[in-house]
Amino acid sequence: MISIQRSVRCVLPRALRMRQLSSTSSPTSFKFSDLEVQQCKPNEMAPKPDPNNLVFGHHFADHMLEIPWNADQGWGKPVICPVHNFSFHPAAKVFHYAVELFEGMKAYRGYDQKVRLFRPDCNMERMRSTAIRSSLPDFDGDEMIKCIQKLVSVDKEWVPHSTTSTLYLRPTFIGTEPSLGVSVSREALLYVISGPVGPYYPTGFKPVHLLADPKYVRAWEGGCGAYKMGANYAPTINIQLEALEKHHCQQVLWLYGPEHQLTEVGTMNIFMFWVNEQGERELVTPPLDTGIILPGVTRRSLIDLARKWGDIKVSERTFNMKDVTKALNENRLLELFGAGTACVVCPVEKIIYQGDDLHIPTMKDGAPITMKLYQELTDIQYAKTPSDWMVEVD
Amino acid sequence: MISIQRSVRCVLPRALRMRQLSSTSSPTSFKFSDLEVQQCKPNEMAPKPDPNNLVFGHHFADHMLEIPWNADQGWGKPVICPVHNFSFHPAAKVFHYAVELFEGMKAYRGYDQKVRLFRPDCNMERMRSTAIRSSLPDFDGDEMIKCIQKLVSVDKEWVPHSTTSTLYLRPTFIGTEPSLGVSVSREALLYVISGPVGPYYPTGFKPVHLLADPKYVRAWEGGCGAYKMGANYAPTINIQLEALEKHHCQQVLWLYGPEHQLTEVGTMNIFMFWVNEQGERELVTPPLDTGIILPGVTRRSLIDLARKWGDIKVSERTFNMKDVTKALNENRLLELFGAGTACVVCPVEKIIYQGDDLHIPTMKDGAPITMKLYQELTDIQYAKTPSDWMVEVD
Repeated sequence: MISIQRSVRCVLPRALRMRQLSSTSSPTSFKFSDLEVQQCKPNEMAPKPDPNNLVFGHHFADHMLEIPWNADQGWGKPVICPVHNFSFHPAAKVFHYAVELFEGMKAYRGYDQKVRLFRPDCNMERMRSTAIRSSLPDFDGDEMIKCIQKLVSVDKEWVPHSTTSTLYLRPTFIGTEPSLGVSVSREALLYVISGPVGPYYPTGFKPVHLLADPKYVRAWEGGCGAYKMGANYAPTINIQLEALEKHHCQQVLWLYGPEHQLTEVGTMNIFMFWVNEQGERELVTPPLDTGIILPGVTRRSLIDLARKWGDIKVSERTFNMKDVTKALNENRLLELFGAGTACVVCPVEKIIYQGDDLHIPTMKDGAPITMKLYQELTDIQYAKTPSDWMVEVD
Repeated sequence: MISIQRSVRCVLPRALRMRQLSSTSSPTSFKFSDLEVQQCKPNEMAPKPDPNNLVFGHHFADHMLEIPWNADQGWGKPVICPVHNFSFHPAAKVFHYAVELFEGMKAYRGYDQKVRLFRPDCNMERMRSTAIRSSLPDFDGDEMIKCIQKLVSVDKEWVPHSTTSTLYLRPTFIGTEPSLGVSVSREALLYVISGPVGPYYPTGFKPVHLLADPKYVRAWEGGCGAYKMGANYAPTINIQLEALEKHHCQQVLWLYGPEHQLTEVGTMNIFMFWVNEQGERELVTPPLDTGIILPGVTRRSLIDLARKWGDIKVSERTFNMKDVTKALNENRLLELFGAGTACVVCPVEKIIYQGDDLHIPTMKDGAPITMKLYQELTDIQYAKTPSDWMVEVD
């Protein structure tokens, strides 16, 4: 059994913690105790989709959570209600200036049939930090978690009866003030929708190919790459399309700086397991202090798990394409993978870089480190291994 | 009279021209000839606001233009209809991944009472380029201009009867597909709203103070700073707030790179008029080829006007804070100003940089170059000076 202390409670690195500027909002939060639940009528409930044919992001559970805010009155009452379209003025700031942010998290139905959230405090810590970076109002993360627990409870039958599928949750926060001008939004809406998602690897691990082209940069020092703002995503769509159409690569490997540091893979953090220059077996992922890496919840969880093993070195530090190519040539690069909420881990078998195909031997011996991390984390998420990381719903 | 040849028709620099990837859309465009006009009923028309109390972005004319698109059927019919709220699913991509872009342009009522647009081909060129960068579908810019002309014609009484005020137009393009996942939006909406805006300087030029803090970076080589995507704006709001609240600066001066190049001011391009190291009187603005500068329509127009004078050197090249401080010390810095659609020119009188207040003598002799550019451009816009840049409405 893995026992994880409460002391690992989520705290972002100092560099990413945002201080709220005075005029953004009142400091108070909405309260779970004010939550109003408006249940769907039975005839309004959607049929559950075939759990074997779930397409990510296309199926939605029956209910959503909505919490309005405005600068004059502060937070309104949280409401759980049937999923419905929004009605916004065409000048709403979210349509023009990308005043928007989100989180991705999941509800798991464990081996014991109980439904649980995975480290929701980490998501709320990051969401609050991103809200402040976006000049949207702060709120109490614990109150939000209680509202989300209730939402999942109301839509409990949407959590797949499966230890490979989940109910994906999408907390979202948008600026809705209907006025043009690049300025703080005086109206906003915090909401959560959800939907069932299938196993990421229904037929076993599928390693991916990456396009690594230094002419595209995802995030930069002095920018907002460490925050889950919508602004970080739109610019990547065209590059992702180029990777797929021109190079048959499923993902983009985002490089940074003159030394072509590896930063992220698609929308995932990146990990490399190798024998380093000192001959040590080391799991390495880029550090958060530069502000260009998203502080992933899966990222920090994998670091925590691997550190407990005690038999490999675990480092948060930069590494670049020269390190990768040199290690490949010397047979020291063992495994390379992305890590994120959607897939847990995503093994890499090829990188296209400056005209070369770099073959990465991740799957050669069955990706033992990648697999071990996957197994340990999913065992926690589906409650095979008890852990304080899991928070029960109801 | 200034005569401007058709040969100056808008073409973006090669580096910013985007090629459409195959799966983004069908190549066809909507057509002006399909336009349907649904006029407001007289009782639906809003009262015109007091032209002396116009707040930017808060007043809207009665009608809007809407053109839907989806990946299966391509472009739908353009419709001019009463301004109304949109109804979108909470999973619409615009709320999550900032799939959105816009333009800012104006309709002017000239001295001869005729209403005209200023270089709409430049806005459409940039909008199409930004759409492709955003994986949204391309369209025919001339068809769009005809639709916009009609919109302005329908709301002609909203164009202020004034040679200092204008009807601000906001073409906007958003991805509306209701599905989660960072990918090309298979549904989109192109629309235009408009509203009257007052004179930017009702009581004469008001020079601004700028916060220049190199720890904040607006855009990066390899990013999307040269496109008018919503993603470029949300990250600036918090910095703008800090400039105002902590430093009493109205705008942020965006620096770049280890040498602290001057790139933009708030949402404007930047110009410096100085005596350069070679002793030449030179008007300088950063070049577009790095991909970090928005190709402003006012920017290129001011360059064109100043080049016609023939008595000063006009350069598109980088300059940095060391150039600024050295020139200030040697009394060679004469004028510094922002340039954009909202204000035309915006003189700068102070920069706060690394703990120092740099006093910029822009207004010392009445800002002769800044003023001359302002006068020449507004004379064209309000049709005091005939110019091919102006396109009549009706």
